[in-house]
Amino acid sequence: MNVVTLTTDFGADSPYVAAMKGVLLSLAPRTTIVDLTHSIPPQHVRYGAIVLDQVCERYPPGTLHVAVVDPGVGTEREIVYIEIGAQRYLGPDNGLFSRIASRIKPTRVIAVDRPEFWLPSVSATFHGRDIMAPVAARLSEGLEPARIGTPRDGIFVLDWPQPIAGANSICGEILLVDSFGNLITNIERALLASIPSGTIPRISTSAISITGISRAYGERVAGETVALVGSSELLEIAVVNGNAAQTLGMRAGDPIQIEWQAE
Amino acid sequence: MNVVTLTTDFGADSPYVAAMKGVLLSLAPRTTIVDLTHSIPPQHVRYGAIVLDQVCERYPPGTLHVAVVDPGVGTEREIVYIEIGAQRYLGPDNGLFSRIASRIKPTRVIAVDRPEFWLPSVSATFHGRDIMAPVAARLSEGLEPARIGTPRDGIFVLDWPQPIAGANSICGEILLVDSFGNLITNIERALLASIPSGTIPRISTSAISITGISRAYGERVAGETVALVGSSELLEIAVVNGNAAQTLGMRAGDPIQIEWQAE
Amino acid sequence: MNVVTLTTDFGADSPYVAAMKGVLLSLAPRTTIVDLTHSIPPQHVRYGAIVLDQVCERYPPGTLHVAVVDPGVGTEREIVYIEIGAQRYLGPDNGLFSRIASRIKPTRVIAVDRPEFWLPSVSATFHGRDIMAPVAARLSEGLEPARIGTPRDGIFVLDWPQPIAGANSICGEILLVDSFGNLITNIERALLASIPSGTIPRISTSAISITGISRAYGERVAGETVALVGSSELLEIAVVNGNAAQTLGMRAGDPIQIEWQAE
Repeated sequence: MNVVTLTTDFGADSPYVAAMKGVLLSLAPRTTIVDLTHSIPPQHVRYGAIVLDQVCERYPPGTLHVAVVDPGVGTEREIVYIEIGAQRYLGPDNGLFSRIASRIKPTRVIAVDRPEFWLPSVSATFHGRDIMAPVAARLSEGLEPARIGTPRDGIFVLDWPQPIAGANSICGEILLVDSFGNLITNIERALLASIPSGTIPRISTSAISITGISRAYGERVAGETVALVGSSELLEIAVVNGNAAQTLGMRAGDPIQIEWQAE
Repeated sequence: MNVVTLTTDFGADSPYVAAMKGVLLSLAPRTTIVDLTHSIPPQHVRYGAIVLDQVCERYPPGTLHVAVVDPGVGTEREIVYIEIGAQRYLGPDNGLFSRIASRIKPTRVIAVDRPEFWLPSVSATFHGRDIMAPVAARLSEGLEPARIGTPRDGIFVLDWPQPIAGANSICGEILLVDSFGNLITNIERALLASIPSGTIPRISTSAISITGISRAYGERVAGETVALVGSSELLEIAVVNGNAAQTLGMRAGDPIQIEWQAE
Repeated sequence: MNVVTLTTDFGADSPYVAAMKGVLLSLAPRTTIVDLTHSIPPQHVRYGAIVLDQVCERYPPGTLHVAVVDPGVGTEREIVYIEIGAQRYLGPDNGLFSRIASRIKPTRVIAVDRPEFWLPSVSATFHGRDIMAPVAARLSEGLEPARIGTPRDGIFVLDWPQPIAGANSICGEILLVDSFGNLITNIERALLASIPSGTIPRISTSAISITGISRAYGERVAGETVALVGSSELLEIAVVNGNAAQTLGMRAGDPIQIEWQAE
């Protein structure tokens, strides 16, 4: 089995994605293509990087994750093939893969620069279809990655704000808003282990202060604002059966603080 | 061939769905995964139940339909595996499968309670990925259902309002609004057979009164409100080339009446 | 490999699409089903025709493209099977395939009129599920197309406005607005070759005038309006990192003019 996932900012159900799939299936008919998401906000590389980091490692070893969030298409930015852990990645070298790479060091980076594996005619605006899809197809069919380009040492890295943990508090920020309007923070579950058991933390934002971290949405009543560790393993602020981003008027980048009493 | 369909309220194109697919393909690489829909309104179990009832029996015998509309995730509600007719179902026991079960009696119900078939670490908020996807993968690979849990006698049942048929009238209600804004009622085609041929029924709601039941959208002009039996085999109210829910200000639960002259 | 693509106006993530896939997989389990798009604006045959024309030829030879944008469902319009180049098409004969056919002459047209290959019961509103899906499944499994209906001479043809090229100007129009809000015109890349190299054309609409055709989005700053040849090989007007249709208040059918200085 050869799995190729697609992540883009083309919009759900875009015919541009369908064009990429046509190229992929023409060159690699046995490939299983999976849509990771096409709803990355347009040209929001950081958002794409967070989503890739949350999902890609759920896939079978050897899966090739093709990501096209590419505000620099047609300019000098390179396209890269990267191996990180058991997964493989292909996309513009603009930081899309740098959140995964901030956790696990890439073991191989190749600048994709051999046009003989691209479509014969490459448009200035759609490298996803004309370069990445045909290269992904060849890799899916077993082409040795060394043949698609030139080895490189590293990738372009975005800054990933880390939360600051003190004796009685953690300072973090909102990393992204999900499709439910939940506010996903940069505070991972492991960091919350520093809160002494038995003490009840207070989670504060500019808009609201919440007492305690819930175990599940179902514990509270509809309309109540809760803090809990979501499926991404990150602390999130949610409104039960509602939309926290809209209700609280908060967005990515907004600060969040957790405080608790000293023992 | 092993087909697994996915129905959730995660939103079209959600990366959470992609995480479930990653788990499924990792454990059951030969599975054909089909998105049934991910646009169930958030936590709207009843809407999910109606959609599952409309679509699932179109699938090949043995298809496993995984449904995650799960407001009680992380609380005491059980996850169930159900066999109904030739189809198989997996999801929270909150009524999601009770509209299908109101037509065809389930032949097998198993409470999914054997953690050895789940992911090693189960989050409190995402049983779709951590419990249902791996259990679905094992079933898709041929695991005997008896091994995933404990047999049970029945499932949680929601109330499904039935239309009332009189000598000269039928009283029903709007069950759901589809993606075109069409108002789908709880009045099935078979019930309309009680209207004498040759008489023209009058379909009334709080907002509008319609004369006659059309055979097809194309019979009327754009902007006109029509009543017809849709592809769900249920009577629906539609605005030709328009959105009936918006135009008429109607929603699920609103009453609808059909009247006709005595012969 | 047998590939069937689906194009409809049912809306992204519609359960009606899932019903079609269930019928397809029941009758043709080895088929690879690909969603081309389901976001054609409701009953917008012309928009569907443009999208089909942009994407279908990217697919492997023999792919069957099923398209359901069908305002006349349930009326007298015919369903047709068409062979154009290496691709195959199935859908209502209402002009959906006439943009492709305006470039490449169909080599075979068959009116789909043999009910023995349809579902036993055909609804008046959903021929996609009840006629096209089962016929597509049979064709995907290798059924000889001659068996599904009666040969015909041509298809229904929509008018496709052609740009007018003069000595110093080209007059065209907006063909469609894509999911980014980019304004795709009917002016193809090849036509732009008539602009002498070294001269800088002026692109004018009722709302804005743009100097020069950019090579890529990345060449200009965010918020700027640019003209460039997009991935469809058609000239388009875009707002960098923005939505041109909303910003400029323009829509399909609006005129566009390109002018340049005589040499």
